[in-house]
Amino acid sequence: MANKLTPREKDYSKWYNEIVVKADLAENSSVRGCMTIKPYGYAIWEKMQAELDKMFKATGHENAYFPLFVPKSLFEAEERNAEGFAKECAVVTHYRLKNKENKPGKLEVDPNAKLEEELVVRPTSEAVIWNTYKSWIQSYRDLPILINQWANVVRWEMRTRLFLRTTEFLWQEGHTAHSSKEEALDEAKLMNQVYADFVENFMAIPVIQGTKTSSERFAGAEETYCIEALMQDGKALQAGTSHFLGQNFAKAFDVKFASESGALEHVWATSWGVSTRLIGALIMTHSDDNGLVLPPNLAPFQVIIIPIYKNEEQRKQISYLAEKIKLSLEAKNIRVKYDNRDKFKPGYKFNEYELKGVPLRISIGPKDLNKGSVEIARRDTLSKTIISQSNLVSYIENNIKKIQKSLFDRAKSFQDQKITLVDNFVDFKKILHQKGGFIYAHWDGTESTEQAIKKHTKATIRCIPLNAKEEDGKCVYSGKNSKRRVLFAKSY
Amino acid sequence: MANKLTPREKDYSKWYNEIVVKADLAENSSVRGCMTIKPYGYAIWEKMQAELDKMFKATGHENAYFPLFVPKSLFEAEERNAEGFAKECAVVTHYRLKNKENKPGKLEVDPNAKLEEELVVRPTSEAVIWNTYKSWIQSYRDLPILINQWANVVRWEMRTRLFLRTTEFLWQEGHTAHSSKEEALDEAKLMNQVYADFVENFMAIPVIQGTKTSSERFAGAEETYCIEALMQDGKALQAGTSHFLGQNFAKAFDVKFASESGALEHVWATSWGVSTRLIGALIMTHSDDNGLVLPPNLAPFQVIIIPIYKNEEQRKQISYLAEKIKLSLEAKNIRVKYDNRDKFKPGYKFNEYELKGVPLRISIGPKDLNKGSVEIARRDTLSKTIISQSNLVSYIENNIKKIQKSLFDRAKSFQDQKITLVDNFVDFKKILHQKGGFIYAHWDGTESTEQAIKKHTKATIRCIPLNAKEEDGKCVYSGKNSKRRVLFAKSY
Repeated sequence: MANKLTPREKDYSKWYNEIVVKADLAENSSVRGCMTIKPYGYAIWEKMQAELDKMFKATGHENAYFPLFVPKSLFEAEERNAEGFAKECAVVTHYRLKNKENKPGKLEVDPNAKLEEELVVRPTSEAVIWNTYKSWIQSYRDLPILINQWANVVRWEMRTRLFLRTTEFLWQEGHTAHSSKEEALDEAKLMNQVYADFVENFMAIPVIQGTKTSSERFAGAEETYCIEALMQDGKALQAGTSHFLGQNFAKAFDVKFASESGALEHVWATSWGVSTRLIGALIMTHSDDNGLVLPPNLAPFQVIIIPIYKNEEQRKQISYLAEKIKLSLEAKNIRVKYDNRDKFKPGYKFNEYELKGVPLRISIGPKDLNKGSVEIARRDTLSKTIISQSNLVSYIENNIKKIQKSLFDRAKSFQDQKITLVDNFVDFKKILHQKGGFIYAHWDGTESTEQAIKKHTKATIRCIPLNAKEEDGKCVYSGKNSKRRVLFAKSY
Repeated sequence: MANKLTPREKDYSKWYNEIVVKADLAENSSVRGCMTIKPYGYAIWEKMQAELDKMFKATGHENAYFPLFVPKSLFEAEERNAEGFAKECAVVTHYRLKNKENKPGKLEVDPNAKLEEELVVRPTSEAVIWNTYKSWIQSYRDLPILINQWANVVRWEMRTRLFLRTTEFLWQEGHTAHSSKEEALDEAKLMNQVYADFVENFMAIPVIQGTKTSSERFAGAEETYCIEALMQDGKALQAGTSHFLGQNFAKAFDVKFASESGALEHVWATSWGVSTRLIGALIMTHSDDNGLVLPPNLAPFQVIIIPIYKNEEQRKQISYLAEKIKLSLEAKNIRVKYDNRDKFKPGYKFNEYELKGVPLRISIGPKDLNKGSVEIARRDTLSKTIISQSNLVSYIENNIKKIQKSLFDRAKSFQDQKITLVDNFVDFKKILHQKGGFIYAHWDGTESTEQAIKKHTKATIRCIPLNAKEEDGKCVYSGKNSKRRVLFAKSY
């Protein structure tokens, strides 16, 4: 536990991998590219789920569950979507194992149990869901359908990284059906706004809202809204997407509704999702060389209490006080853990919770008993204060709010400082190389320019910001006319 | 919606399938044997999850997430477990699709993307989890590990039925590791007790706790504790199981710990699970020929308010009152829905919520405005009362408790009445055929007798009840000596 992390300056990628494992968030499993999410990491995901689920329900959505498997013939129905995911599909071809001849205890696939039609393990559920919606929708009275699903999905990735890119991951996917284009567009925008609110207010990660260029869009979407965040190493991370799917899936699955006037029309669709990838964004936004730094809103416990004692008499007195403090904090809905394990020393525990990013630490020693004091340490600033036990509850309450805000403000000023306006390709390359971050530059709107810039610099267009104002300019690469700036960056 | 259900007397199985579909709980999907859980059915599952999760956490468990896939070599490591599940495994053999030659838009499995080692879609997670625990456990300090997982699993079933037996289903699986046999046994018993408490108190389904005979045990377990419920048609349903796995998985995956004395010992294990199958038990315990009957503790909404009006003026006044009632009930944490849809008539709504089993219905008509009254209908008894608006909140509060208790009591007296003590095989067959239910009879303890009885009658030993008292007797089939009675029944 006392092992130091590799400093970020030295090797950011190594620091990231170490923090994930040492803070007990996740680890690689015996299955190539799949991770095990450990209890502490999963507790963070549960907090995220609970808050998102509340926000989805408050905006009128219900949860449901659709099958894990997609028959190949359904999978290929929406052609662009199928093409987008075909190269990364896990495919079930058989439904039975049998004993290997002359090899007791060994099994093999039973060739007599081959499926007539192969099943794709869902990489996303549009196909299986729209094939279901077909039977749910007859008239405008059946619309809108506002459904969300919490599920696991599988995309066969060649290069994987814990949380950021894994073969299996956990996510939520919203799938909605509407009677008009406007309503579907509004839904896609609304859910992107819900994501922005969640990520900024709960995860304390500032984001830029925008739309994707056509080459970066979700396979099968007409428009993809997104939220983009900036990591400490100057690379961008797509934190959530919300797609306006037009009538593409309705046409592929022949889903029509009778409008109020009696005409038969194709249904309009959206889909939107965020995943366990957000935990990667969380780590790379706030954490430091000492370990994880958690925003209080997401921390499985916001306060850790550690006793320091030399004998049984002290242990008893301190435990009594610690339990009393715990109760008084819990009465204010603060999540507190009292670590009374006797087999570990205080110093070991200090390291452990620093590594795990617990926002506030209360330590209580023998002197505190006489003085009526406790020591409080803030994880984000690493600062310590001695305060009176009588002020403790309000002090903690205030600091929980303060830390949440302070983490966001720090990340926001970092992001602001890393958005650079650039007007020529020499500067573009220089800034990208020396400073990193977002480059806000004019683009001529063509895919060929986008690809050329990517080829030369590895930077892609992260988004066309929603708040980008119209402005005449020349494309940073081709010199052709441009009407607005877009946001470039290297990305995860 | 007004379509009547097939009466239970006429065709119980048909009644069951109709209720699942017409109450909007679930439906068959385009994937063989897999179901779509619709929003109303999923809302019931969410209530179950929330309550169970609280109970698991209160008993010291944490959630985590392990991979969906089990490499074949891990899967076969614990031989009995592998043998038990090998015949129903979905197997992933390839990780890519490609375009079919000369068939634009059609895809096929890419033969160049064959996996070196096949992946089994988890039918249960002991193998993948114990292979992980191996690296988590070195010393007694690392024990116990008390982990639960909420997940989907796949068992390739030949004959499927919504909720009761589906190829994919949702469940939770607890997997714990202990330093002693006693502790693991206590854990297995504790979790079976947690299941019994949950099913009885929340689902209002009385259960009998017991252990399975060796032939009915979970593949790889040394002892399986279970809770057995009785359905209205006299068939038993296994509602939950908790397994003491001994050191079988620790030996298969070589998981040892250094004890306090320094000796290396194999770790002791348990696993325990309940699934969406419980929703089938819920339906078949309480519902009637008019549709679903939900215990208030599990109902997505406990009270439905339906307005009855003839003109806009009445609609406004009734809506004002309905919203006020809704708020006053919600202030008491009662889940209420006000159905103000204008496009459906009151009669249609009455049918809909009767079919969906909402425990209490409040209807408000124009006369109620003058009289200060409302009409209340109980779903379980179909009785109606007019009560004063001023007594409404306490009346509803009382009735929620009353209905919960009444459903349990009714099911319990049904179950009690359907447990028959039988002492010879002629009576055994007669009772089973004429009355159904549980038959409480002596058994000689041999598997051959168990199999013979099954062959003759289709009844199996559901469990050896935990509260079975020692009693000298003769086996109902073989006439050999027996020390206690066991519980036979036909089952789902």
